[in-house]
Amino acid sequence: MEKLKYLINNYKDFPKKGIEFKDLLGILQEPEVFKDLIHEMSKSKIIKNSEAIVSIDARGFIFGSAISLYSSKPMILARKPGKLPGEIEEEKYNLEYGENSLSIQKKALNKYDSFAIVDDLLATGGTVGCVAKLLKRNKKKVLGLITVVELLELKGRDKLNFPVESILLI
Amino acid sequence: MEKLKYLINNYKDFPKKGIEFKDLLGILQEPEVFKDLIHEMSKSKIIKNSEAIVSIDARGFIFGSAISLYSSKPMILARKPGKLPGEIEEEKYNLEYGENSLSIQKKALNKYDSFAIVDDLLATGGTVGCVAKLLKRNKKKVLGLITVVELLELKGRDKLNFPVESILLI
Repeated sequence: MEKLKYLINNYKDFPKKGIEFKDLLGILQEPEVFKDLIHEMSKSKIIKNSEAIVSIDARGFIFGSAISLYSSKPMILARKPGKLPGEIEEEKYNLEYGENSLSIQKKALNKYDSFAIVDDLLATGGTVGCVAKLLKRNKKKVLGLITVVELLELKGRDKLNFPVESILLI
Repeated sequence: MEKLKYLINNYKDFPKKGIEFKDLLGILQEPEVFKDLIHEMSKSKIIKNSEAIVSIDARGFIFGSAISLYSSKPMILARKPGKLPGEIEEEKYNLEYGENSLSIQKKALNKYDSFAIVDDLLATGGTVGCVAKLLKRNKKKVLGLITVVELLELKGRDKLNFPVESILLI
């Protein structure tokens, strides 16, 4: 997993001034590293003990889907507004300006009792906290979050009252 | 693959009046079916002969990522505006009202010569055609499109001048 960090590219002032964006897409261009990463994430007890994975729109889908395939765990999606048909459960979260929301289909949610949340990167923890709140409001167990990269200085982990596992801490 | 069709849910008038939305997310709740599907898609010569997969934002990521893991092919992403950092190649496509665009990172594009396009569903072919145009403008070979579902009555295939393989034709 040592190779991972060399595949991450930093972009200053993206998507807006003052943010240094960590681009993980280089990992997908190295199939052996991607495979090792998915094996490593799938080993987590958070994944193993969960009934299902919930992946966060949209880069979370990439890692969640591969973990789902590798570990034979069902996957459901937490999506941005207007993307999911049928009855949905929605939860808002704050952005620096204004707010946004994430939704899960009720029918999918009702099938499982315990979830592992999967995303690419843990920054401030806003979106992950939103998904966890939605799950808990619906009486679901949140076994934890598993991410590829965690930005330690943003202390997202401190806002989450469940286990967090990140493959690379930077 | 017979089971696939029973996992697809139809929603009338979503995302807007007059559209019948095919929801494929039920497939992800059946890990064995999902695995069979990914194996089947990965068998395609379009995938086997390509240097890399290009997956379309955002549901294409789910299937593309799993195919990438299974077949050890590198994956790059075609994303909606504002999502990709760094230098990008962009191509517009028409919607019923107005237009939208898809982008690929130049650095990722430059690494490969031949691509398999992966998406969840082929409808009118607008987004796939857009990705193919972007690839061809950059002197790349488009080996074909592979999708889970193809809506035959919309004749998307007729607009695409490369092979199209769909697991389920409806």
